[in-house]
Amino acid sequence: MSSKHLSTGSTCPPPVAGLMRCYSMKYCPYAQRARIILELKKVKHEIVNIHLRQKPEWLFEKSPLGKVPSLELDGQALIESLVICDYLDEAYPEPPLYPADPWSKGQDRMFLELFGKVTSVLYKVYFARGDEQVLKQGFDDIKAGMDIFEAELRKRNTRYFGGEKPGMLDYMIWPWMERIPVAQKFASDVIGHLPDDRFSKLLAWMEDMKKDPAVKATYISPETHYKYLQTSLAGSPDYDMPE
Amino acid sequence: MSSKHLSTGSTCPPPVAGLMRCYSMKYCPYAQRARIILELKKVKHEIVNIHLRQKPEWLFEKSPLGKVPSLELDGQALIESLVICDYLDEAYPEPPLYPADPWSKGQDRMFLELFGKVTSVLYKVYFARGDEQVLKQGFDDIKAGMDIFEAELRKRNTRYFGGEKPGMLDYMIWPWMERIPVAQKFASDVIGHLPDDRFSKLLAWMEDMKKDPAVKATYISPETHYKYLQTSLAGSPDYDMPE
Repeated sequence: MSSKHLSTGSTCPPPVAGLMRCYSMKYCPYAQRARIILELKKVKHEIVNIHLRQKPEWLFEKSPLGKVPSLELDGQALIESLVICDYLDEAYPEPPLYPADPWSKGQDRMFLELFGKVTSVLYKVYFARGDEQVLKQGFDDIKAGMDIFEAELRKRNTRYFGGEKPGMLDYMIWPWMERIPVAQKFASDVIGHLPDDRFSKLLAWMEDMKKDPAVKATYISPETHYKYLQTSLAGSPDYDMPE
Repeated sequence: MSSKHLSTGSTCPPPVAGLMRCYSMKYCPYAQRARIILELKKVKHEIVNIHLRQKPEWLFEKSPLGKVPSLELDGQALIESLVICDYLDEAYPEPPLYPADPWSKGQDRMFLELFGKVTSVLYKVYFARGDEQVLKQGFDDIKAGMDIFEAELRKRNTRYFGGEKPGMLDYMIWPWMERIPVAQKFASDVIGHLPDDRFSKLLAWMEDMKKDPAVKATYISPETHYKYLQTSLAGSPDYDMPE
């Protein structure tokens, strides 16, 4: 996981036959999705980290759109975080991460689509560079997106979206939830904290999720995220900085 | 299918218990995906058509983002075309539309994501309003996207992406392939026709797909698509015009 991020001019490490490989970037929330499910399903794998601003020439052979995550197995690539995670769930059925009933599974996948409302605004807040209006609007949008999930968790009346254990929906939204406190660090003067009463279920969920072993294995603290983002905003992301 | 498109001020027809309902718009490629799979799986259902420029007030109750398609069953909504079609494939397993092997299924779902390269440019061509540069660039982009699928079909060396019968990947890309000749009508002076040799497999595939019963049930000719688009470009889409 902590291997150096490979950049332009590097050589791709030779693949090991039969060993799954995940091309990743340490701070990428989409790659984190794949890494969480690899951990959870106890899939033997290796991580090859990629410098996304100075991409290795060989990356497009390993990921047709030049993005992470990409899962490689015996010379074939699989891309898109949800496609990868659904593949892992089907290839390694234990523990199952979707409800058995197709309609309920469809509902979870629909909520994943609705979560786009949160993912699309988080980076706006990151890159607001102190612009108070952008920060305020961004946080209003994040809160409006979170309202949907707070309401759904209350409706399901369970600890996790997956029931008494986290399911695919929990794990797939986690990487952005992990980063909401980071966005708050950028905007604390403007927006304060998330209202406890408005997000009571979701805030308890966040604390529970942090204790999950698969989440823990990929967790990065808000302080470290923030420190990394400062290097990224300064134009030269330091993917390999010490935590 | 040919029921009038309901608009602002309309009343939502009362649902029938246990009968699946699909909110649709006759010319929407995303809604067509759902309608193809409903036909193919022989699911008893009704279609309620929506005027997307003058949306009924009740639409957001039936589709959280106010979009079509939305599938409604016993008061619950399922949205996003791929989520709906995957649900239908799981709830009505015959005929199966994905390969049984999870990695191959993942590959099909990955190609669906890559097809975004085609879907995102088709409308640019539609709305180019005669701008030759936009038309030319748009068609170059469409052809670059189609190259990926031509290469994949050659690699699979089968009649359809699904093998000897169409599968989910075939049906999910079809609505845009149906519309490529429409885009050509807008741009014929600029781009001519699709090169036969460059797209030999895909052009044969298009002819085969047109004969598929589920495709036939939702098929609209390039002439009718074009006629409809003229009304849309003029600012007042005539969803209910006679074909």
